[in-house]
Amino acid sequence: MSSSRGLTVSSVLHQSTPVQASSSPSPSSKSSESRVDPFKLVESDLNNLYEEIRKELWTNRPELESIAGYYFDGQGKAYRPMVVVLVARALNYHLTRTPDLTSHQKTVAMVTEMIHTASLVHDDVIDTADFRRGKSSVNVLWGQKKAILAGDYIISRASQMLARLQNDEVIFILSQVLLDLVQGEFMQMGSKEDESERFTHYLHKTFKKTASLMAYTCKAVAHLSGANVSHQEAAFQYGRNLGIAFQLVDDLLDFVSSQAELGKPAAADLKLGLATAPVLFAADKFPELNVMIMRRFSEPGDVERAYDYVMKSDGLDHTRLLARKHADEALRHISPFADSPEKQALMTLAEMTLSRKK
Amino acid sequence: MSSSRGLTVSSVLHQSTPVQASSSPSPSSKSSESRVDPFKLVESDLNNLYEEIRKELWTNRPELESIAGYYFDGQGKAYRPMVVVLVARALNYHLTRTPDLTSHQKTVAMVTEMIHTASLVHDDVIDTADFRRGKSSVNVLWGQKKAILAGDYIISRASQMLARLQNDEVIFILSQVLLDLVQGEFMQMGSKEDESERFTHYLHKTFKKTASLMAYTCKAVAHLSGANVSHQEAAFQYGRNLGIAFQLVDDLLDFVSSQAELGKPAAADLKLGLATAPVLFAADKFPELNVMIMRRFSEPGDVERAYDYVMKSDGLDHTRLLARKHADEALRHISPFADSPEKQALMTLAEMTLSRKK
Repeated sequence: MSSSRGLTVSSVLHQSTPVQASSSPSPSSKSSESRVDPFKLVESDLNNLYEEIRKELWTNRPELESIAGYYFDGQGKAYRPMVVVLVARALNYHLTRTPDLTSHQKTVAMVTEMIHTASLVHDDVIDTADFRRGKSSVNVLWGQKKAILAGDYIISRASQMLARLQNDEVIFILSQVLLDLVQGEFMQMGSKEDESERFTHYLHKTFKKTASLMAYTCKAVAHLSGANVSHQEAAFQYGRNLGIAFQLVDDLLDFVSSQAELGKPAAADLKLGLATAPVLFAADKFPELNVMIMRRFSEPGDVERAYDYVMKSDGLDHTRLLARKHADEALRHISPFADSPEKQALMTLAEMTLSRKK
Repeated sequence: MSSSRGLTVSSVLHQSTPVQASSSPSPSSKSSESRVDPFKLVESDLNNLYEEIRKELWTNRPELESIAGYYFDGQGKAYRPMVVVLVARALNYHLTRTPDLTSHQKTVAMVTEMIHTASLVHDDVIDTADFRRGKSSVNVLWGQKKAILAGDYIISRASQMLARLQNDEVIFILSQVLLDLVQGEFMQMGSKEDESERFTHYLHKTFKKTASLMAYTCKAVAHLSGANVSHQEAAFQYGRNLGIAFQLVDDLLDFVSSQAELGKPAAADLKLGLATAPVLFAADKFPELNVMIMRRFSEPGDVERAYDYVMKSDGLDHTRLLARKHADEALRHISPFADSPEKQALMTLAEMTLSRKK
């Protein structure tokens, strides 16, 4: 969890692990001829996921139910539950040669999407965002008070579902996720004065805000599969590294995708005052960025100037390279798993995470 | 939990349970000669409660820790943990003749205060309140974003502490509290169009927003004492009825106390658009109030007019009477407990809840 601590921009890119340029094939892309479509493989497990989540959100307050259910419309990518389901199935297969998901593992997949969605709802309030996934955000439609409450409501329903599992270990594993989400959000609101600490801070924030949910939910389904501690740790590390790669690509896309593709404004992070990996890498080459980072791009023209610096620098390439490094690390951790379509799909997923365009 | 459903103003005050006027002695005040001071009795259990909570809130983000710890300054009344500790000790004594609190019960007492405080922090954001307990609210000092996150942080720390207990039953019991707090807050934001449903709605809201926390935490410590289901239910009902009485008195004090006494503006509820028991009772006599209730006292002069109607009506007396009824009901439920200083203190506490001035 804390292997990202103590890293600096230069140490990140010059560690002993060999990192290949994105143009040459990485170890993980070797399997591309035998690619398994992760979405197809989990289709039957996920096709009623949103419907079942909406059932869990039932309450005799219809407005609360509508707000809480708003994002569970089947239009999401269901990326996180897919990861969880694939890890669960891969380990079930590894241990019993039967990949079928147990009902408890299904609950964890649902809870994963619910915690993620609740955090989106609160994030939208905190960022006063108007759009999410190409539609108006909850706080625009219902106002901020109800958005705060709807987020709290989803979390408390998810907690109840976990309590029903009556599995102390799983409850304990997942209790860490909420804590990390809050701490990650808090870290995002501060800038490190010391430039040498900024990248560590960013990676640590990225773990807490994005990767923790994937890491701990993967560990929870591994535990439920009956996997031993070392396989649980492998599942955790797969989720952790995939989550960090996912966020790095997200930060990258914020610079290269249009509003139409992302469903949110381009360079949204800069506009929110956030310095993500591309900017931090660019500041290595253009130290002029540091003062803008510290004032959170708040002066007129800062956003445009910072954007230009990133484009002139190798910040995007470095970010892509670091994402590749984490995706490779994710694959290294699942290499001991028995070969199965699910394991292949987990490998494909790492590739897809790197190559996604939105 | 749902015995408040289906009640109307008139049915509440004309049920078969004999309700005495507040001037004549009630069954519960008979024990006043042998009064035990509840605060003294739990002093050693509670004197380091806030310090221990602040330890649990430790994080390497100093600002988050300061905000989250802001209300755990030892200046609170610690009313809720006191109730929980007394119920725990009374049942420990009942079952083993040794009242001493177990460490798990102590954790529940801490979690009780933490959940309560987290909900205050979120309430202050939702109500955009400036003051709390005579000092500036968290959202005034740190802004609304950080207040939302600090509330979430306290909740997630409390969830972690519960997870550490490794007691599925307790986790399940307490998972209901968060859900109720959110639903209660949501109910408070809506007004029932149908006047006959309004009082039921109010009592139901009061259970969820205030009494649920006390009811379920009392049930949790009863479970941890090893009490049987019927004593667990008795503990639940004590907490539930005391909680409702507490809130009724709170609603009453909002009309009769000054800002200096309450630490918040007088008639604050009316100013927030909320119709509490005194107003709902007054509307029986002055139906003119109904239109103001529906528009949530939003027209100029509404707050003052509604205040005057309440003062001219018997709304305050009826509210006091209903609080007395719930306090008596609380006592009825603990009557099977073995006599002990703790049981006496629980009886005294019910009296103090009725007679408190702030």
